[in-house]
Amino acid sequence: MQTIETHVLDNGLTVALEPMSGVESVSLTLMVPAGMASEPEDRQGLSGLLTEMVCRGAGGLSSRAHVDLLDRLGVVRTTGSTLRHFRLGATLVGDRLSEALGPLLDMAMSPALSEADFEPSRQLALQTLDGLQDDPQHRVMLDLRRVLFPTPLGRSPHGRRADVEASSVEDVRGFWERRCRPGGGVLAIAGKLDPERVLERVSGLVSGWTGRAEPVSISPTAYGGPVQSVEKTSQVHIGVGLEAIPELDEGVWCQRLAVAALSGGMSARLFTEVREKRGLCYSVHASYAGAREFGAIMAYAGTTPERAEQTLDVLSGELVRIHEGLEADEFARAKTGMKARVVMSGESTSARASALASDLMVLGRTRSLEEVGAKIDGVTLEQVNAFLASREAGVQRVVTIGPEPLAVPERCGG
Amino acid sequence: MQTIETHVLDNGLTVALEPMSGVESVSLTLMVPAGMASEPEDRQGLSGLLTEMVCRGAGGLSSRAHVDLLDRLGVVRTTGSTLRHFRLGATLVGDRLSEALGPLLDMAMSPALSEADFEPSRQLALQTLDGLQDDPQHRVMLDLRRVLFPTPLGRSPHGRRADVEASSVEDVRGFWERRCRPGGGVLAIAGKLDPERVLERVSGLVSGWTGRAEPVSISPTAYGGPVQSVEKTSQVHIGVGLEAIPELDEGVWCQRLAVAALSGGMSARLFTEVREKRGLCYSVHASYAGAREFGAIMAYAGTTPERAEQTLDVLSGELVRIHEGLEADEFARAKTGMKARVVMSGESTSARASALASDLMVLGRTRSLEEVGAKIDGVTLEQVNAFLASREAGVQRVVTIGPEPLAVPERCGG
Repeated sequence: MQTIETHVLDNGLTVALEPMSGVESVSLTLMVPAGMASEPEDRQGLSGLLTEMVCRGAGGLSSRAHVDLLDRLGVVRTTGSTLRHFRLGATLVGDRLSEALGPLLDMAMSPALSEADFEPSRQLALQTLDGLQDDPQHRVMLDLRRVLFPTPLGRSPHGRRADVEASSVEDVRGFWERRCRPGGGVLAIAGKLDPERVLERVSGLVSGWTGRAEPVSISPTAYGGPVQSVEKTSQVHIGVGLEAIPELDEGVWCQRLAVAALSGGMSARLFTEVREKRGLCYSVHASYAGAREFGAIMAYAGTTPERAEQTLDVLSGELVRIHEGLEADEFARAKTGMKARVVMSGESTSARASALASDLMVLGRTRSLEEVGAKIDGVTLEQVNAFLASREAGVQRVVTIGPEPLAVPERCGG
Repeated sequence: MQTIETHVLDNGLTVALEPMSGVESVSLTLMVPAGMASEPEDRQGLSGLLTEMVCRGAGGLSSRAHVDLLDRLGVVRTTGSTLRHFRLGATLVGDRLSEALGPLLDMAMSPALSEADFEPSRQLALQTLDGLQDDPQHRVMLDLRRVLFPTPLGRSPHGRRADVEASSVEDVRGFWERRCRPGGGVLAIAGKLDPERVLERVSGLVSGWTGRAEPVSISPTAYGGPVQSVEKTSQVHIGVGLEAIPELDEGVWCQRLAVAALSGGMSARLFTEVREKRGLCYSVHASYAGAREFGAIMAYAGTTPERAEQTLDVLSGELVRIHEGLEADEFARAKTGMKARVVMSGESTSARASALASDLMVLGRTRSLEEVGAKIDGVTLEQVNAFLASREAGVQRVVTIGPEPLAVPERCGG
């Protein structure tokens, strides 16, 4: 039986703690509202620059001293920016948590953001942008988000080249000052921990950190932008997306199970129809991306120029055909697969910390594994099929990167 | 306290079982000697074709029926070929293990290998090969293996295009017949399991599976082959490799700790010298690849054409400078980081199953986490520095993919 404690501190930071038995490690996820969607329109890339710079000194320690300290404590950590949030993740041996909390939280609370570290950080950001040229598979999905998601949710975590070039260290400092605030943020910790002691330690560490970031306004229009890029790639990279229900909609489990029937295992429809039966491409998958105010289904296929038209046609066709409903067998398989993944995620401290933080951000509360398992169990085939029948297939957006543009099926506005 | 049982069955298959408390999942790793190194010289790619075809029907079940059955049991699985082995990995909820063992083991023991499934499998293999064109970061490391590893260990898991084109379903069947044999193979299972029951079940299932594959002979010469590929990539992708001690050498922990000081965390030398201080590239790392008869250190850096020469120079220089020895601080950090990763790996059933199988293959016996932890603990700074001083830096092999060739430093035979 899991116990999850949730506390809202005086400064508005929500802290969720889940002690796990039988583990030696502990993981934390910190999320504060400094994501890509909160960047100024003409400074897209600031959130990425910030995630790089917070690794270069914090809490009065130089870059060198801070990095050495966390490595001496054996902390494996990552920083990143999502649509809405600055995200810090860390995993370490539980006995070191008390010592590591200070230098980890300092990365969000009091990063050095020094002049000297700005230029190397910007150079890395520019190189990451340039490196995308050599990774069309990743790039096509960034393009798809841009044409599919409402403004500014379709932004790239890597920003725009001109904006990164125009950015200054003052821009990063201002962005941090406005957005890296505890109000509305969450800190989730799961694994080997003593809740009372950790809560006391966290409360003490963050007491001087205050403020709340302004809400970000979302416009219902998407960015638009280029749809088919003609480039000298060897393969054709195809992204197909369509709008789906938001994460808070009550039909979300029906939506997830339908996507699992499309792409949840080797027996799923896309794998079978595109890959196994026709040998059309080596890589094909679809996933549901849900946020508080928006949801989407995004599918990818990579194939040869000769097979690209047929691949797009089959992929796009399956996204429509799913609305005719699932068979009992495939529904049962999708359900079992989804439940198995829930069980497996419960054995990873980092997966648990991440799920707690994400639940708090989207739902405003944490969920136990039992609750998630029961939700999946409770969905019936009739519910999924009624959900699918009630939803129109919707307009599909297609983006491609390849040696020539594809003829887009009519259902995709072609 | 861990208990690990090891049994050698009548047919020569070694079975290792590690019950883990506090987990609901169970993972298995099966390895039999059908890896790339055992492919006929003119059929490079057969092991990859086999790993694709075993997913298409086994144990008298059609492709459809077999895939559906495993998905109905919620089994997440992968197949792959390594230098020496065909490898099957699977994770599932522990309660389903007994039902899933049959269809999983059938993939190695009695795959359908049907005529009808051969052509789609070959098409996928060819597309994977072609897809490498759009993934120079992955491809440069395959090139590095080819010039660094002794024949035939430097082969690519994807094979060669002409060989895959020339292959027939009879080739795959013959390869399976000769190489997918239990003698010298291992099956490791870790997680929620009852050892006695699992052993009985496995023994029954594999009793009709017999034979032992011929040993593969290794020639001390490397493949050679192209070293610098001039292509219209956006970035320059650099691989630097050098020979190191084999996994069985007693100095292997000194070797691993030295590589951890180079690339084990954010404070490690490569990250600091190449990325943080100079902003030279967004991605740089080095790793030790050990096998029974051969070891290598392989490093990667991806950067812009303008920074490529300097990046290669710094990267290559650090691989030499490490032989001057480690500082006490960085040694302590490398050790802590390595031990933390051991603790974390002990909480994942799939990491444990994989480690058990790999230990059996390389060392001929399993190791507990305690033993590995104690080994790391026991290494002193003096031992590492004596090891590094006693080894020459060695000749570095450089491979690149980029818009123009680089001037290679003298120490790399340039």
